[in-house]
Amino acid sequence: MDPYGLRRVVSPRGALPQRADVLDPALPLGEDELALDVEALAVDAASFRQLEQAARGDPARVAAEIARIVRARGKLHNPVTGSGGMLLGRVAEVGPRHPAASALRPGDRIATLVSLTLTPLRLDRILAVHPETERVDCVGRAILFASGPWARVPADLPEALALSVLDVCGAPALAGRLLRPGQRVLVIGAGKSGALVLARARELVGAGGFLAAADRSRDALDGVRDAGLCELALEVDAADAVATLRAVEDAGGPFDLVVSCASLPGTELSALLAVRDGGTVLFFSMATSFTAAALGAEGIARDALLVVGNGYVPGHAELALDLVRRTPALRDLLARRAAATPAAPLAPAPARAGS
Amino acid sequence: MDPYGLRRVVSPRGALPQRADVLDPALPLGEDELALDVEALAVDAASFRQLEQAARGDPARVAAEIARIVRARGKLHNPVTGSGGMLLGRVAEVGPRHPAASALRPGDRIATLVSLTLTPLRLDRILAVHPETERVDCVGRAILFASGPWARVPADLPEALALSVLDVCGAPALAGRLLRPGQRVLVIGAGKSGALVLARARELVGAGGFLAAADRSRDALDGVRDAGLCELALEVDAADAVATLRAVEDAGGPFDLVVSCASLPGTELSALLAVRDGGTVLFFSMATSFTAAALGAEGIARDALLVVGNGYVPGHAELALDLVRRTPALRDLLARRAAATPAAPLAPAPARAGS
Repeated sequence: MDPYGLRRVVSPRGALPQRADVLDPALPLGEDELALDVEALAVDAASFRQLEQAARGDPARVAAEIARIVRARGKLHNPVTGSGGMLLGRVAEVGPRHPAASALRPGDRIATLVSLTLTPLRLDRILAVHPETERVDCVGRAILFASGPWARVPADLPEALALSVLDVCGAPALAGRLLRPGQRVLVIGAGKSGALVLARARELVGAGGFLAAADRSRDALDGVRDAGLCELALEVDAADAVATLRAVEDAGGPFDLVVSCASLPGTELSALLAVRDGGTVLFFSMATSFTAAALGAEGIARDALLVVGNGYVPGHAELALDLVRRTPALRDLLARRAAATPAAPLAPAPARAGS
Repeated sequence: MDPYGLRRVVSPRGALPQRADVLDPALPLGEDELALDVEALAVDAASFRQLEQAARGDPARVAAEIARIVRARGKLHNPVTGSGGMLLGRVAEVGPRHPAASALRPGDRIATLVSLTLTPLRLDRILAVHPETERVDCVGRAILFASGPWARVPADLPEALALSVLDVCGAPALAGRLLRPGQRVLVIGAGKSGALVLARARELVGAGGFLAAADRSRDALDGVRDAGLCELALEVDAADAVATLRAVEDAGGPFDLVVSCASLPGTELSALLAVRDGGTVLFFSMATSFTAAALGAEGIARDALLVVGNGYVPGHAELALDLVRRTPALRDLLARRAAATPAAPLAPAPARAGS
């Protein structure tokens, strides 16, 4: 048994798959492994933005770079951001000793809830890149280890919506553990994880609470405000700590809980300046720099609990999907964003059975 | 008033000093600033190791690189590790509106408790590099902002000891908030911050607790074990997650609290594998990668609270110094390490008054 996938690590010796430079996706399936026919990659936002910038916005070059990384590393582990994403596929084969051996059958559609940075992956073809949803349609083969969480793609939600929610399902679950009635909460980044956190906060802070969202995009802010997910929308670039400090003062001063869902780097100090002494900052942004957070807090003498956004919380997938089901405005917002995506086809899509 | 030192930021616009590429240490002293005649830099361990490796262990080249960084950036902010350290000096001038205006006089010796990554600094001369204590004797001028914590160098402790304790004084203070009676605690890295955390843990876990230290250095382990600071010493390279996993199993299984004080990168997964579900990992190592911690936990489905080692906790300096005063074995251990340093003189030291 090899629950962490050690035997797939090519280099360096003694590393687990997440830290490995290279994985081997080609080994025969292990007894406790699961093989997936991959249909789509949901690339982590920080990783996608980096790839897009390096490719100057050209989807074909983004696709080529993704193919290059996967060929070189045996996984989609962005060497610049260190982040990955997750994937959607159909079960191809279940090892007899995999924990889901009795629950899953070949053909079942599931999403992996473990980062692509440690998922052995072979890509045969990239079909389309969708910049708005950071989604990449593709044909390939992936391996899931015994320790890797997964979720069945729900039948009652549109697939693009479900996938985009599952991608960040740890955010509302972990934020939920830190939310308390009456809190003043600031969410930095009004994208999908920000919207999910705001919706969960709306349920937990109660009538005495106060929710604010900060983003540099007016569109993103309008989305969460029109959905009733916050009382205040702060149009500010969180990489500009001075501007953020001013916006926080205008908003009535520091917050009890700040949740960073920013997709761009350099926002740590803004998060720290926005929290009160004794408060908590939850960093979900994969663009977070550990040293910038730790030294930034010390530098401004801010006595706050700083929490790393661990993407795994038991039951996170069902919690996030249920949150979307019971919050129609959130569902509409996320569905609009997931559907608004202008696909960037790279090659004719293969004919589907029945179409 | 400019409590965060915004006016000293040369670039980029809107950044605070910690995130700035370049600071200006040459501006006239602000009304709420404090100027220091610098005597020594206590370089952050992760930064010093990186500088040392790049210089192939040559202290003169370490000194040259430090001088180059400070000349280029106006601060000792290691561009590779993102970390700094702290410094020791005498008060040269106190602005009339600095919070310490009535407490400090020119000539008083203080240590800054704010990172060198945001401390405006000019270096006139580097006198000696001490690799064992990561200390650099020098002549220069530094600026402390109104928000920057500092501590008087205590008269009852040897200076090298006091400085080395103040450098990491946030570690035992923050760990103290997470320690509970009866816990099983693992400290990764048996250097000075590891020893301080173990000593604080010894006080707080009580007779029902269990303390283990992991390090790849037998000497470092012998030090903390001989000082009675732990029950178990695990000689293992924490960058080797597989070896660490095995060591943890041999030690009786996962821990309630894992504190990472490692000075080398790549130890995040070992920390995560060593903690139990529902436990806490406190990352003090400046070599910690945010994505490796967040995605590593997700990758092995570990439901643990991951805390960033915020270097500021109110009262941390006195707490750490008092811990050393009341723990003779810890004091001896740290004093031995601080004194054992073979200095690497770079130039004849200037004559001191009276010598």
